[in-house]
Formats: sequence, C-alpha cells, structure tokens
Amino acid sequence: MTDRVGAAVVSVGNELLNGETVDTNSAWIGRRLTGMGIEIRRRFTVADDAGEIRTAVREGIESADLVIVSGGLGPTRDDLTRPAVAEMFGRTLRVNDALLEALRARFRARGLDELPPSNITQAEIPEGAVVFENAYGTAPGLAVETDAAVVVLLPGVPREMRGIFDDHVRLYLRERFTDRLTAIEHRVIHTTGVPESRLGELLEGALPPADDAVRVAFLPDLRGVDLRLTATAPDAELARRLLDEAEASIAPVVVPWRFIAESGDIVEAVTDALLGRGWRMAVAESCTGGLIGKRMTDRAGASEIFRGGVIAYDNFVKMNVLGVSPDALEAHGAVSEEVAAQMATGACRRFETELGIGVTGVAGPGGGSRTKPVGTVWIASAHEGGVVTELHRFVGDRRAVRERAAQAALALALGALQG
Amino acid sequence: MTDRVGAAVVSVGNELLNGETVDTNSAWIGRRLTGMGIEIRRRFTVADDAGEIRTAVREGIESADLVIVSGGLGPTRDDLTRPAVAEMFGRTLRVNDALLEALRARFRARGLDELPPSNITQAEIPEGAVVFENAYGTAPGLAVETDAAVVVLLPGVPREMRGIFDDHVRLYLRERFTDRLTAIEHRVIHTTGVPESRLGELLEGALPPADDAVRVAFLPDLRGVDLRLTATAPDAELARRLLDEAEASIAPVVVPWRFIAESGDIVEAVTDALLGRGWRMAVAESCTGGLIGKRMTDRAGASEIFRGGVIAYDNFVKMNVLGVSPDALEAHGAVSEEVAAQMATGACRRFETELGIGVTGVAGPGGGSRTKPVGTVWIASAHEGGVVTELHRFVGDRRAVRERAAQAALALALGALQG
Repeated sequence: MTDRVGAAVVSVGNELLNGETVDTNSAWIGRRLTGMGIEIRRRFTVADDAGEIRTAVREGIESADLVIVSGGLGPTRDDLTRPAVAEMFGRTLRVNDALLEALRARFRARGLDELPPSNITQAEIPEGAVVFENAYGTAPGLAVETDAAVVVLLPGVPREMRGIFDDHVRLYLRERFTDRLTAIEHRVIHTTGVPESRLGELLEGALPPADDAVRVAFLPDLRGVDLRLTATAPDAELARRLLDEAEASIAPVVVPWRFIAESGDIVEAVTDALLGRGWRMAVAESCTGGLIGKRMTDRAGASEIFRGGVIAYDNFVKMNVLGVSPDALEAHGAVSEEVAAQMATGACRRFETELGIGVTGVAGPGGGSRTKPVGTVWIASAHEGGVVTELHRFVGDRRAVRERAAQAALALALGALQG
Repeated sequence: MTDRVGAAVVSVGNELLNGETVDTNSAWIGRRLTGMGIEIRRRFTVADDAGEIRTAVREGIESADLVIVSGGLGPTRDDLTRPAVAEMFGRTLRVNDALLEALRARFRARGLDELPPSNITQAEIPEGAVVFENAYGTAPGLAVETDAAVVVLLPGVPREMRGIFDDHVRLYLRERFTDRLTAIEHRVIHTTGVPESRLGELLEGALPPADDAVRVAFLPDLRGVDLRLTATAPDAELARRLLDEAEASIAPVVVPWRFIAESGDIVEAVTDALLGRGWRMAVAESCTGGLIGKRMTDRAGASEIFRGGVIAYDNFVKMNVLGVSPDALEAHGAVSEEVAAQMATGACRRFETELGIGVTGVAGPGGGSRTKPVGTVWIASAHEGGVVTELHRFVGDRRAVRERAAQAALALALGALQG
C-alpha cells in the first residue's frame, strides 16, 4: 500500500491559531478525502503570514502527493495564500480575464457598478493554475500542479470551501489520481456501561493484529465507548467484507454492552424498542433533573413513545406527585433502591405508561456521605414484568455523574424492553 | 515584543486527520494561551504514530518555547505520545508510585480490585517529568523540560484536557515564563433576547474605535450574544481600568437584555434572584421536554431554589398532572397563551412554589401549521403578582428552537423575579 495517495491539509488564519474560530474545515476535508481513499498524513494550521504558509506547504509536499490549503484567499491585506504559493513555485500572478468579468457581473448583480480594487486581486491567479469556479463567493479555488505534488487552494469560508470542493475538486482529484485511489470503509460499534480499558482487554484476542487491513479505534466519552473499524481494500465491496468479518469476531465479546443506533445515541435504540413493543415511557428524575426527558425529546416524533415525566428534585415532589412512601424515604433515604423503585412505578402509574424509569443519586460535589459517596446512583425500571434496580458508583464531576446516570438509566430501559 | 512567549500546539489522533472528530482542543488551548499573552505560532495534527508525533514536536520546538501535545495518553495500544516523547528526549519511562496508587484507588472506588495491566502503563512517566494530576480521568498531564523548550502532554478527551490545564498547567506556565507574559484582560457582557446585528447597530456609537487598546468581539450562540472586551496593556491594573471605561460606555445601551452571571449562564442569575427573594421555582415543560429542569440542576445547590417540574409532553399529562383544563386545550390548542399560563400556575400549585414557568410550542420539524408554524412558542411565568405570557417565533432547527425557548423562559423568570 506504499502507493496510496497521501494528502496534507493546511489551514490559514490567525483566528484559528488563537482559537477564536474552531477549525471545522480540516475535519470536513479529512472526511471527504478519506472517503475517496486518500490518506491524510499531516495537518498544519498557520498564521496569516507568507513565510509560514510556504513552510507548511513545503513540509506538506515532503510527505504527500496533494496539499490542500484553505483560507487566505480573501480580498483584504491579510489574505496572503495566493501570492505566497505563486512565489514559492516561481509563478507570476496574472489577472484572469474570465474571472475578472465574472467578478464584475457579481458586483453588478448587487447594484455595484464599480469593482473595488481589493477584489480585483481575487482575479489574479498563478500562471498555469487550474481554476475552480466559486458559485458561493468571490474567491475561486485554484490548483497549482508541480512535478512533486498538486497544491489546491480553497477559500476559508466553510460554505464556499465545501461548495467548490464538491462541485469541482472531487472530480479533479479522481481524474488526477485515478489509478491510485483505494476504498476505505468505516463501521462503528456502540457500547455503553463498560470501561475502555476493560473493553480493550476483552477484545485483545478478538481483534485483528494491528497491521491488518482492519484497524480498530476506541472512542470513549461520558456515554460509552465506540469502536470504530476501518477497512482498506482495493475496492469497496472487499472493504465491506473485511468489516463484516471483523464485526463477526468482535460481536460475541461486546454483547452485554452493545446497542444498535445509526445516530450513535442509545435514545434511538430505546425509541425503536418502544415502537416495536407499542409501549410508552415516563421518567421520574431526581439527580438527573430533566436530562433524560430532554434526551428522549431531542429527536422529532418522541410524542409517540414518550409521555413525559416528573423532575422530582425535592422529596416533597417524590411523595406528593409520584407517591413515594414517606416511610421508604425515612428508612432508606432519598438515594436508595426502594425510592428508585417507587419512583419508577410511580411514573408508570401517574402517567399511565407501560414503562417507567426512576433515577435518584448524589451528583455532587456536595451531599455525599461515607455510605453514599458522590457518584452513588440508584436506577430502576418498572413494567408489568416487574421492577429491576441497579446501583452505580460513577466517577467524575457533577456533569459526568449526571450524564453517566442518564445513560445508565436509558441502557436499563433498553434492557427491560429487550428482556 | 520579540521576546513574547511562543507556543506550538500538536493534536494527536487518526480520528482528527480523517475528520471523524473535529479538533476543538486546539482552539480551546489557543484561547487559553492567547489570554495569557502567549502567541500561538503553529499547530500540527498528526496520526497515532510515534514518528509523526516526534516530527511535529521537533518542528514545534524550532519556532516556539512551549509545545502542547494533546491526545495519545490513553491505555490502549494506539496511544503512543508518552513513549514517543520519552524516546525523543532520551528519558526512560518509569512507573510513578504515587500515580500507580492513585490509579488503584480510582479502580477500587469503582469496585474493581485488580488494576487492568493496560492502565498500569498510564502510571509510567518519562524520567524527570512534572506530573499534573488528572481529577477527571486516568491519564495524568506531564511536562518534559529541556534546554530548548517545555513540552506539555495532555489527554485528548476534552474535559480531561481542559480540567488539567485549568487546575495545573496555567499556573505552571505563569511561573515558568513569568517575566515574558504581557497583561491581557478580558471581560464579558452577557445579553439574551437581542439579535447580534441589532446589538451591533446600537453599540456603533458607544464602541471604542477598532484600533484602540480595547477590542470588542460579538460572540453569538443559541442562548444570546456575549460581548467580549479585551484590553492589552503593560500591566494588569491598567488593562482593568481600560475595561472599566469601556464597560461604562456600553452598559446603558444593553440594559434591556443584559444579565449578570459569572458563568455566563442565565441560570446563575435566576438562581441568585430566587435566593435573594427566598423563593422556589417549578417548571412545566412541553416542547423543551426537560431541558429547563436539566439546566436549573446543572449547578450544584439547586435544591434550595428548584423543587422540580413536570415534563408534560403529552396533553394527558398537562390535564392530569398539571390541571390544565380540557376546555382550554380544546378551544385554543396545546400551543396557546391560555395553556402556557395554566401550565405555569399548575406548576406553582402542584409543587407549592412561589414561581412557576410554563412552556409550550412547536419544536419541529413536523407539527407546524399556517397559524402556528414551527418555532411558535408560548411561555408564561406565574407568581402571586400575576401571570405574564410571551409569544415567540424562533428560527432554526428543532435543537435551536428548544434551546431558544428554554433561554427565553429563563429570561422571563428573571424578569418576573426582578420586576
């Protein structure tokens, strides 16, 4: 696979370096190129400075066949990409008549007869460059071809960059590198409730060797760990077959924690399971304070399967709205198996739903005790088959405990629906 | 200013190069360092590959006094930053006993007696490295000091990276580069309920000239527009005086929309106002589905002022739990002034609170009509002084409508508390 097409991506702009703007262009370009079988070797972000731009392009060419530069093509004096790249390849900047006419027409359409001098520079292109029309703004895309590499220049405004790439650059690259593009396919396996390190150990035997055609990446966040499988092959069908094989060997190991959801959100799996059973759900949330309800209703169409819930932050609410018994609160405390169970059954009863979820815990940072430290959360699911409870000890700050508690409650609901 | 401290930022991860993950860490680090008077010179993104990591760090050191690397400190075999950097500086990796003990304690707290072998590598640090405790996960931050530069290693998980930076790295850098940092002070003025363009027009006269020592940036998001004032001066006191002057000229213009909250979250202002009055609040949420409750309880100590709420997603819940009259639902529909008002008063009554909030609207994408298009939201606040209602027509997708509706409801609550 030494002949794979490699790319370097260069983003230009002081606002990117100092963090005023998050660079979403590079990720977008990365996805597009990866999808074409082009490997991103390196990425650079540099200041609006001709020397810095040249250094990055030069370093990019050292390891790649293709350098894509975004940013610095605008009409103002801090837009230096075009002259910097022209100079580095010894190309003179010349006004392109067709571009100049297109710019004039664009300004006339906006009621401006005179083209501002600063915009005229946008019609100047390095000698011999390929021009990609910009249907979304004033700066065209450009490709400068040398013996060593192709350098593509695109504007930094995301919609212009994306538009030019999809309208022209894609096809241009396909033609330029036609014999060397391979197929890369991805697949993601979602898990929740198992730590990354444990998953890594469990998969050690099931995983293909690191240098195989299928690579596995672990992507953890507060809600769980995604396994991203990446297969590289001469054609897409073979890549998908490699993914099928890898998935088949991983699947038995991850059964207890896996959920299926195109969006990656377990709410999708819960929603599908509720629709499948024709059930509706209600929630009784203490420490999560509405987070589960919020997540259940993030998706359109939730009203078919979600009736609502009670945010029972105060014990008064647990008793008077959900019917939790004062005795249980007295004997076991608000954070207890009994109270979680009564909250879940109370939600079912009060909202007349087939499934109810109860969550009560210590989100912190205060409120912890020796027997119930911060992170202690009881969750419960209730339906006609009975009540299931779980005790968790989550680590992390208040936000982490709440996110993890909501996710665990949704996983418990999914288990109840599938059980 | 030739002696300004320069930094290079290196992000590690295949998922960043191929675009599956957008690199928000680099921008965050850029903002933090810029705020300390450190100039970001270059930024690199590289693969999970020891050679690539070393090349980027080496190139970073060439132009900077400080290199910050994020990513590749996890427990799995694709985490290579620690050994790569140790090798490049000829430092042996040794298990740090204090770290190992902290890891063991962390796993014991989760009920796991045995520390997974893969996690033990996370206690290995390059000889002589400074260790920054990670209160949010397992991989500590590290600083390797050489004659040429300081190389700081941080985990790639954003909350861990941010936590370690703010807890330790900031102070460490202040001490390390103390003589070479200039004073840059920021102040943020929070507004909600006024569009950025209108705010821009109103402030045109009040703003200092663009090339002045105080710069103003408009930072809009779904919840409102922040004005960030930045003053640069030889010392901090002078910078703060410049900010005082700028704030004094801006303040009169923004009165109707301004709220005061150190965190930038209007929930803080609502909480302070509730505490000031000795009131408690309850919510009745339809289209926001728990989002307001979630936001009210994001902060610790919410139980003093927030009793809970009802997620009344279904009309059954509006009637049976909140006591909204079937007649009002029949005559005006669920998205109406009458229903919003009855939800707010119902929340007060049901939860026995001094203040109640009701929200009902069409979040979309479906469910809109000619008279009540997607984005139509009625909000209401109720207390002993009466009921106040507001009609909004929010633009944007489902998420935007829900965020904007929750924010508007919280602003209405704040107005009721201050009125």
